[in-house]
Amino acid sequence: MNRPSNQLFDAYFTQPQMREVFCDAGRVQGMLDFEAALARAQARVGLIPGDVVTDIVESCRAGLFDFDDLAVAIGNAGNSAIPLVKALGKQIAQRNPEAERYVHMGATSQDVMDTGLILQVRRAIELLECDLQELADTLVVQAQRHAQTPLAGRTWLQQATPVTLGMKIAGWLGAVTRHRQRLEEIRPRLLCLQFGGASGSLAALGDEAFAVTEALADELQLSVPDQPWHTQRDRLVEFASLLGMIAGSLGKMGRDISLLMQTEVGEVFEPAAAGKGGSSTMPHKRNPVGAAVMIGAATRAPGLVATMFTAMPQEHERSLGLWHAEWETLPELCCLVSGSLQQALQVVPGLEVDESRMLVNLDSTRGLVLAEAVSIELSRRIGRDAAHHLVEQNCRRAVQQGAHLRQVLGEDPHVTAQLSSQELDRLLDPAHYLGQARLWVERAVAEHTRIKQ
Amino acid sequence: MNRPSNQLFDAYFTQPQMREVFCDAGRVQGMLDFEAALARAQARVGLIPGDVVTDIVESCRAGLFDFDDLAVAIGNAGNSAIPLVKALGKQIAQRNPEAERYVHMGATSQDVMDTGLILQVRRAIELLECDLQELADTLVVQAQRHAQTPLAGRTWLQQATPVTLGMKIAGWLGAVTRHRQRLEEIRPRLLCLQFGGASGSLAALGDEAFAVTEALADELQLSVPDQPWHTQRDRLVEFASLLGMIAGSLGKMGRDISLLMQTEVGEVFEPAAAGKGGSSTMPHKRNPVGAAVMIGAATRAPGLVATMFTAMPQEHERSLGLWHAEWETLPELCCLVSGSLQQALQVVPGLEVDESRMLVNLDSTRGLVLAEAVSIELSRRIGRDAAHHLVEQNCRRAVQQGAHLRQVLGEDPHVTAQLSSQELDRLLDPAHYLGQARLWVERAVAEHTRIKQ
Amino acid sequence: MNRPSNQLFDAYFTQPQMREVFCDAGRVQGMLDFEAALARAQARVGLIPGDVVTDIVESCRAGLFDFDDLAVAIGNAGNSAIPLVKALGKQIAQRNPEAERYVHMGATSQDVMDTGLILQVRRAIELLECDLQELADTLVVQAQRHAQTPLAGRTWLQQATPVTLGMKIAGWLGAVTRHRQRLEEIRPRLLCLQFGGASGSLAALGDEAFAVTEALADELQLSVPDQPWHTQRDRLVEFASLLGMIAGSLGKMGRDISLLMQTEVGEVFEPAAAGKGGSSTMPHKRNPVGAAVMIGAATRAPGLVATMFTAMPQEHERSLGLWHAEWETLPELCCLVSGSLQQALQVVPGLEVDESRMLVNLDSTRGLVLAEAVSIELSRRIGRDAAHHLVEQNCRRAVQQGAHLRQVLGEDPHVTAQLSSQELDRLLDPAHYLGQARLWVERAVAEHTRIKQ
Amino acid sequence: MNRPSNQLFDAYFTQPQMREVFCDAGRVQGMLDFEAALARAQARVGLIPGDVVTDIVESCRAGLFDFDDLAVAIGNAGNSAIPLVKALGKQIAQRNPEAERYVHMGATSQDVMDTGLILQVRRAIELLECDLQELADTLVVQAQRHAQTPLAGRTWLQQATPVTLGMKIAGWLGAVTRHRQRLEEIRPRLLCLQFGGASGSLAALGDEAFAVTEALADELQLSVPDQPWHTQRDRLVEFASLLGMIAGSLGKMGRDISLLMQTEVGEVFEPAAAGKGGSSTMPHKRNPVGAAVMIGAATRAPGLVATMFTAMPQEHERSLGLWHAEWETLPELCCLVSGSLQQALQVVPGLEVDESRMLVNLDSTRGLVLAEAVSIELSRRIGRDAAHHLVEQNCRRAVQQGAHLRQVLGEDPHVTAQLSSQELDRLLDPAHYLGQARLWVERAVAEHTRIKQ
Repeated sequence: MNRPSNQLFDAYFTQPQMREVFCDAGRVQGMLDFEAALARAQARVGLIPGDVVTDIVESCRAGLFDFDDLAVAIGNAGNSAIPLVKALGKQIAQRNPEAERYVHMGATSQDVMDTGLILQVRRAIELLECDLQELADTLVVQAQRHAQTPLAGRTWLQQATPVTLGMKIAGWLGAVTRHRQRLEEIRPRLLCLQFGGASGSLAALGDEAFAVTEALADELQLSVPDQPWHTQRDRLVEFASLLGMIAGSLGKMGRDISLLMQTEVGEVFEPAAAGKGGSSTMPHKRNPVGAAVMIGAATRAPGLVATMFTAMPQEHERSLGLWHAEWETLPELCCLVSGSLQQALQVVPGLEVDESRMLVNLDSTRGLVLAEAVSIELSRRIGRDAAHHLVEQNCRRAVQQGAHLRQVLGEDPHVTAQLSSQELDRLLDPAHYLGQARLWVERAVAEHTRIKQ
Repeated sequence: MNRPSNQLFDAYFTQPQMREVFCDAGRVQGMLDFEAALARAQARVGLIPGDVVTDIVESCRAGLFDFDDLAVAIGNAGNSAIPLVKALGKQIAQRNPEAERYVHMGATSQDVMDTGLILQVRRAIELLECDLQELADTLVVQAQRHAQTPLAGRTWLQQATPVTLGMKIAGWLGAVTRHRQRLEEIRPRLLCLQFGGASGSLAALGDEAFAVTEALADELQLSVPDQPWHTQRDRLVEFASLLGMIAGSLGKMGRDISLLMQTEVGEVFEPAAAGKGGSSTMPHKRNPVGAAVMIGAATRAPGLVATMFTAMPQEHERSLGLWHAEWETLPELCCLVSGSLQQALQVVPGLEVDESRMLVNLDSTRGLVLAEAVSIELSRRIGRDAAHHLVEQNCRRAVQQGAHLRQVLGEDPHVTAQLSSQELDRLLDPAHYLGQARLWVERAVAEHTRIKQ
Repeated sequence: MNRPSNQLFDAYFTQPQMREVFCDAGRVQGMLDFEAALARAQARVGLIPGDVVTDIVESCRAGLFDFDDLAVAIGNAGNSAIPLVKALGKQIAQRNPEAERYVHMGATSQDVMDTGLILQVRRAIELLECDLQELADTLVVQAQRHAQTPLAGRTWLQQATPVTLGMKIAGWLGAVTRHRQRLEEIRPRLLCLQFGGASGSLAALGDEAFAVTEALADELQLSVPDQPWHTQRDRLVEFASLLGMIAGSLGKMGRDISLLMQTEVGEVFEPAAAGKGGSSTMPHKRNPVGAAVMIGAATRAPGLVATMFTAMPQEHERSLGLWHAEWETLPELCCLVSGSLQQALQVVPGLEVDESRMLVNLDSTRGLVLAEAVSIELSRRIGRDAAHHLVEQNCRRAVQQGAHLRQVLGEDPHVTAQLSSQELDRLLDPAHYLGQARLWVERAVAEHTRIKQ
Repeated sequence: MNRPSNQLFDAYFTQPQMREVFCDAGRVQGMLDFEAALARAQARVGLIPGDVVTDIVESCRAGLFDFDDLAVAIGNAGNSAIPLVKALGKQIAQRNPEAERYVHMGATSQDVMDTGLILQVRRAIELLECDLQELADTLVVQAQRHAQTPLAGRTWLQQATPVTLGMKIAGWLGAVTRHRQRLEEIRPRLLCLQFGGASGSLAALGDEAFAVTEALADELQLSVPDQPWHTQRDRLVEFASLLGMIAGSLGKMGRDISLLMQTEVGEVFEPAAAGKGGSSTMPHKRNPVGAAVMIGAATRAPGLVATMFTAMPQEHERSLGLWHAEWETLPELCCLVSGSLQQALQVVPGLEVDESRMLVNLDSTRGLVLAEAVSIELSRRIGRDAAHHLVEQNCRRAVQQGAHLRQVLGEDPHVTAQLSSQELDRLLDPAHYLGQARLWVERAVAEHTRIKQ
């Protein structure tokens, strides 16, 4: 058959290791690992002879199977387990015809596919944890490095009172830390065996059914769920949601960076690398190619997550269609998130920061972003509304005259009646109006450290 | 102004208590509770005089405000806090002009709106927990009651080996139990204060900023987050995801019930109630009106959840548009889920079960659903493929002849060479092929009990 | 009952006229219009006596019904038509007990609800058409007014070669024009009768069924579809998609405006209005409160549209749950889009444009945005790669030296060997590098004019 | 590099020809076709020498390029056009160094990628049209074949009054016909050139820009849009919506088939094929493997469509992230829909219909599904409510007594006072209560015929 490839954007949008987890071979190996473990478990329990196990286990290597044949057979079977088990039977029979009769005993296709998926998911989680931790470590370094670097806070895309770059990065860090907490909490719920046989009762295994279940879970180092979950998919949806949340948080990071990187802002840049982010027509441009992936993944993830939610009301003991809707969706989501993380890991450590441009921008409203400092101080003396009104008037006057707010305030007797010249100077210096910015960095780092241990 | 109402389906699709949490008055009161607590907190810290607190607090009652005026003012302000704080100031000034200058000090609109929302969410969580627990208790009763009631397992909407109704209900229960675990885990992360001032630095409050933060959190019985989360929305998205998962699990319950209630199946019914589920043209019908809501909510929730994910990449220190997208979406989701729960709570306790119809249906394939029992037994003697092949042949023969599988098997010498007549009888009795069905009920109940304490 | 209201954001997020179409009274009146027309149609065909029609028709006024009672009854009935028809019967019986027996004859609940919805949709379409046309007219004025106003083109949020504001606005206009074309195309498909009776066969009306159908369609001025479409919902989904597209195009407009309105860009502003867009803490700010709604609607619409798609696979002759999922979703979508249009209609005519700031920004890269002009000219002489390389070198040099590109190019002998000083001057003047910008405006206006007639 | 493949489900979920359109080679060839046509167009206009065209055009073959190298380069460039144009330049230079300088002149990356996509989309549309027409033809045959075959109508999954299988199939047909209409309407809007250069103004091409545009459109047989649409994506979103609607309609078909195929219904079956739909554990089962794909695609499409909508508000003259979100989403959607169509084309012509089972099922409510016939007839004599009430009573009595409705009605003097025994017999015969079923078939076929010409 040899389907034409469709992977031109893989290197840009996904991570090689994650793609390896969720490639054809990864999927097939997950299912084969289930079959091998089932044979070992059934032998441990005494349900099948111990001497067939080796022949079964040694046949359970993805490299032995022809994926093109499998793909065609899947089209007839309606799932990937039936043809794989058939092909596996043939492999085993070549080694030991006796052994062939003991494979897949008491299991149903969905047991194979779902447990295989969980084994893939476990590897995916390890990659995610590793990347999230590395990203968090990097964010800690950057947050601390820029803990005192003032730049304009921006609300509604308008300059507001100053913040620090460290505090902004600490915000990114906080989200990553929470995602790592969530991953910890989800893990025991998610990494559990699927094993129920035809309708979930394991009737085919008679009295030894639960002993096999426990041995199988032990072989695979998975937990035993309360019962088979063929049509209770909340564990997978919960994982998909977490993936979506990670994508969203990285999307926020990408959005902030791309906005800071605007020609008219020019405060923070993705690291330059040879040939990276160039434009075919505008030789001088440096495009935010990493942020593009982070925003792109955050744009695509919600639809894929929604598909997982939509697929929840699965009929009776096995769904048709809704179950099928998961097969490519969850892997796709893992790959997209891994790609977004890959970009974040490239972008964050090498962020180029232009502190002087930040100061220039901070003064571009001629003091208006510090109007609050004045307003708050005045409120304490003449009431909130009066203060608000007085500062608003002065701000308008500053704008109309194209003058600096400091100057206008200094000329308004209603203001100078309340505030001395020194007080006005202090109120209009951004470095004196950073509030708890440093504390936010410290708290985010502390939370990170607490999780890490 | 008096906007025309749009609530014709509220009684059907949502729960009255949840709607009360998320109505205009609930929203306004949440914001006022923030302002009242802020005044108390600032007085505790000594930032404002203690004697103005009472006048502020007493003005913080939703009933004092004109919502139509507010609605119009929101259209100009771009959020609900600015006009509310303005109106609140007027209320306070009427009581005590001195007090007016101390309201909302150091806070920004989003502090008011987000913390107000969290206060609403806390009430919503209490309702959800209460409903989920009641639903779980009811499911326990039903699962145990029907732990021995066999019915056809159904995979791909085709009859498969038998299960029990108890085991099916235990599946529903398991999901509810996990959602309750998740709610417990999310709660401390979610129920935290939003308080950051204009750009999140709390600069306006000077050195007392963090003391005010802690006092404010204490007043509201919320936790203090690592830092303000104006544009880090993962906590809300996590909650939305859980709501979506609950909707999905209830949708699965509704789907199962509506399928079992089909005229041609007729095994389980929503409880009859006077005038409930009648058809305007078909007087004999009893429509699954509860399941319709459960499926409907599961159909609508994914889109709303996706909106919350899509709204994550919020710009800088306050977003425009993405933040706005949350305002009605999360409340809507809470209301939909509450409505689905309301229906489940009405449907589950009164489920009408037709056990005899289940047995009739179980025999409708003339023994074919128990072919696996035979196949498995034969596998042990003649190998998986041979057994599978032999049983497949007999099944086809049974179908062609319109005969019962028991009879056809009894006439096949390849079968009778392996299985005695008594063995065949036993293999074809559903009651002997229920596997671990009872254990699954016990385990689901045990898990429920473990959580409860 | 009296459900608590939930409309605090209605004035900001929706349009009053659209909300009136999709309020409780609008919904009920739509259904009553169906019943009145059915009676008239059946009298025309001679199926019911002519003298009962007046009593039926006069009872079909929404104001006669108690919506709270209806809401409660809907919860039992599972749809809004059953209780309404029951209540209508009572209304009629009070006038004329004889007439009561002729109401709703041969119709099913879904006929009433769906046709009622189509009548609401027709009014919604009229509002949309009117608003889209007004918006297009306004965009034409603005595109022409600013057809020669250069500003930096921006790709990847980086300054690129110059464009004109007129061309940018013409892009917004083009999308609106296409949406108007689509609305025209959809209208005849969408505005059709739903009338099929219990299962869609109209069997209850015997031989006169189709005559009634045609008379009914005529009464309502709707077309007769190929057949009832109880579970074929593509017409509604197509309309929902168009609504989503309008939201998306307005979202793009809102995004552009909010980016241009950034403090660091300051080129275009939403019109100032008393108290509009003010900040509670930053008296000088003018927030893009219109753009926020436009972006917000574009963020929420995709999820609602997705719900409509998800609800398409409706079972057999009437769905449970999927149909229900539409009831509030499509109205919500209409209201959101109307709100976005309302903001666009306020924002576009009053856009404040700072042309001088545009010129300042255009020069902020010291000529780099015109590097392409040089590169293209050089390509013609020394080949694409060599030219690209040469210009890239000069751009880097300009950046390193903080010099203007014009100066650096003038000092590079490789450049001056190809381009004279006059040629360089011309190449670096934005006004000489606007390409087809004016033509794009003309073409968009022409397309608009073509549609209008 | 050699990315691991990920196509195990391609043969099941997509169509080979559509996958070929949207594989790496298809994508690259689309972009190369743009470059070749651009060279031809620019030579026609006299912008580049005619003798370089052959060398450029002959280099524009996808087979000449190393996709693994491209994939890696895309990761640096942030799009696929930059590295492809670079590699193309090298290919051309090998043939003719002089020719190399004339490639890609005046174009930007997005011109290449978008026009390349449109060329792929054109091929996709041809495949879709062909498949939709074939499907419609097949549906016509089946609708006519079963125009008189009665089966139970089913509303809310409850048996209602009878319909015919032909009428049900005509419903499927009607949707396909409308989708074909829509495809016709969309085609001219969608199949247009993207050509704008760096910021959309085509400034780099000077006065010949529009002549090149027209020649290029002519070369590619695409229309010239009002202006470049780099950030106006409504055309693509409209196409995505249509794809989603097709998926939804096929999902409805798959849902109907899978419900009819239920063991307890057994009225209609997917065609049997060797090894198709078998179960690994239940040898007798025949799973709806085609319907599974149709439902699966309808479950996945809404999320992908939503992504396209979410990606609409693209910034300024080129988006980062939102544009990227389209690159794999639209192709994925095309492939899913093609796979769903492929299954429909296999399933519909070979549908196995069990007419006798339909009759048995129709009588399974012992006449209750014909209660409406009686109710309607009685309404004409004693009024709607009285009739409804009377029939409701008799239905309940029939259910309680386990008796046939015919018998119970015959024993009720209130009924027999109105209806003779012969009248009751006729009213309870499904074949006499099919209403307009045949007309609906005829109208759907007529609509199909009308479109075809």
